[in-house]
Amino acid sequence: MSNSVSLPSYRALEWQGDELTGSLKLIDQTVLPTQLKHIDGNTVELIWEAIKQLKVRGAPAIGVAAAYGIVVGLQPLFQPGAEVSREEFDRQLARVAKYLAESRPTAVNLFWAIQRMEQVAKDHPQCSAADLQQRLLLEAQAIETEDRAMCARLGEFGASLLPANTGILTHCNTGGLATAGDGTAFAALAHAHAAGKQIHVYADETRPLLQGARLTMWELMQRGIPCTLITDSMAGQVMKEGRIGAAIIGADRITARGDAANKIGTYSVAVLCHYHKIPFYVSAPSSTFDLTLLEGKSIPIEERVSTEITHPGGVQLAPTGANVYNPAFDFAPAELITAIITEKGIIQPVTEANVRKVLGA
Amino acid sequence: MSNSVSLPSYRALEWQGDELTGSLKLIDQTVLPTQLKHIDGNTVELIWEAIKQLKVRGAPAIGVAAAYGIVVGLQPLFQPGAEVSREEFDRQLARVAKYLAESRPTAVNLFWAIQRMEQVAKDHPQCSAADLQQRLLLEAQAIETEDRAMCARLGEFGASLLPANTGILTHCNTGGLATAGDGTAFAALAHAHAAGKQIHVYADETRPLLQGARLTMWELMQRGIPCTLITDSMAGQVMKEGRIGAAIIGADRITARGDAANKIGTYSVAVLCHYHKIPFYVSAPSSTFDLTLLEGKSIPIEERVSTEITHPGGVQLAPTGANVYNPAFDFAPAELITAIITEKGIIQPVTEANVRKVLGA
Repeated sequence: MSNSVSLPSYRALEWQGDELTGSLKLIDQTVLPTQLKHIDGNTVELIWEAIKQLKVRGAPAIGVAAAYGIVVGLQPLFQPGAEVSREEFDRQLARVAKYLAESRPTAVNLFWAIQRMEQVAKDHPQCSAADLQQRLLLEAQAIETEDRAMCARLGEFGASLLPANTGILTHCNTGGLATAGDGTAFAALAHAHAAGKQIHVYADETRPLLQGARLTMWELMQRGIPCTLITDSMAGQVMKEGRIGAAIIGADRITARGDAANKIGTYSVAVLCHYHKIPFYVSAPSSTFDLTLLEGKSIPIEERVSTEITHPGGVQLAPTGANVYNPAFDFAPAELITAIITEKGIIQPVTEANVRKVLGA
Repeated sequence: MSNSVSLPSYRALEWQGDELTGSLKLIDQTVLPTQLKHIDGNTVELIWEAIKQLKVRGAPAIGVAAAYGIVVGLQPLFQPGAEVSREEFDRQLARVAKYLAESRPTAVNLFWAIQRMEQVAKDHPQCSAADLQQRLLLEAQAIETEDRAMCARLGEFGASLLPANTGILTHCNTGGLATAGDGTAFAALAHAHAAGKQIHVYADETRPLLQGARLTMWELMQRGIPCTLITDSMAGQVMKEGRIGAAIIGADRITARGDAANKIGTYSVAVLCHYHKIPFYVSAPSSTFDLTLLEGKSIPIEERVSTEITHPGGVQLAPTGANVYNPAFDFAPAELITAIITEKGIIQPVTEANVRKVLGA
């Protein structure tokens, strides 16, 4: 089935050049879908800002961006003719790693990718700075390639679970824009569509930042997948009308028992699916799991600025001075999740034992 | 308790002048909360447009506006020196009534108010056109006064049900802007606050038209009631966090068994309350009931234009050509409603027998 799905023509991120002067080309996702604009990420500050301001978003894409961000952040050491000591290199690596880790506090993939880059340095204590810089680029490229392969597996497993000839609800964006490949939950939609399952995707607009309206609808339309945009408040109604055969979403962090933190609104979708007896699937790479946490309530929830709510599209639509609550995430508890799809296999039913079994941890 | 609640300083609608040259002054609710602009409704076309374009909204306010709209629509007959026959008057009344009835297909209060105005003509077959025009203005004023008294009763009954020292969730706008008085569900919030119940209101922003963000937050802040704005997708999360002790909403039409049609998103709130074992209250005047219908699924649901979803605040945030589903309403089925508050009493539990008993129908 995976062979019938081609990669999207757009690329959320693309490395261009070598380890000394190359840069990370990114789609600026904040101006989609009305503009397709690219950022030339040739300083670590630009990449940090892109992550912070959601110009690049989606847990896997953030990990890949951070890995390349490490490479870019070390380039200033290598001025023409400069002799870079290993000590100096390691100091700068630690600085850049710490800096990038502070861009988004909830994204576990960010820390995972950064640690993996740091491990390369630890594993090669005898390596020169120049050699290590080359190895770091190779590692970032490996992370990207693995991410693409991971998406293909998630797509295959996910599509195998999705029912045919029905509507599938999704929330936020989990597509090619959120990963280096075909997406996580979105990959299941792409694979199911390519396999002729005749699905129709209902995309929650996903307030406050409207990733569903802006990004998921754009990707669905780019790929010719039948789709309809709804407000988040319509999810219950389309379920009641019998339009929805399953819901599938991504995750930003998943605990050992299978509680899945994801974009705000995920919890409501999970409860609505439970009430309507509709399967609720989570699709995420194994790197999303944080087995040091047992329960979702231990996941720190980022609160974002109030203007995201008071100024939709930049236009003030709430009274000046309005008090706002703006949690960026909530979590679906394991008992409301029908199955978690990972590149290592499907976790069903969602229990700590099954999580550890499928992850081999 | 009702004595401790003063009417809001703002008035959604206000008749100014006599039956021949008077007009209906309306707050243009589409430009709130950043502008407080009034419309001088001195033609029936302006009033029709105000209803159609949601410049005046909320079932009770629409009824009052339509009643005054009938008066305004008959004024052109009374040119200085003109002799208006009763036949001519009745023909124009029928035309104006039909025209106004087409402005909003879901609002049963609209038809109720128009029929009540037509009944005045039927009850006075011998009356001259000029006398009847005077009686119609008196009838419209009676509808307005009764609406204000009704709000006070809804506020008292509603506040008696609301728990103290907790958050109360509401959806859409049901306040002074939606009625001639203190509101329906909102009146309960105003009364509970005035009675010192120490409530904190969580207002769903209510996509797509954001009546919660624009209007309810404005009214809550005008009246000094502690409040927090959330997106519709956060309702489940604030419930899970234990912040919500009850939800209270309005209704646009209620069937004989107690299914309550209301702004899209109401159904999701009802399901979320059910899951969290939180009382879910509906507050609406008895005129909102349509006893000719048994079940909510018989209520025709208005579908509105896609740009309400694709262009929040007038800014395009979905791809050009995106397919959209935009039902204006859904309904909470009786079994998810803890009680329905009417000016005639509280319907609890919500059954057809209790509906008929409280309404005396």
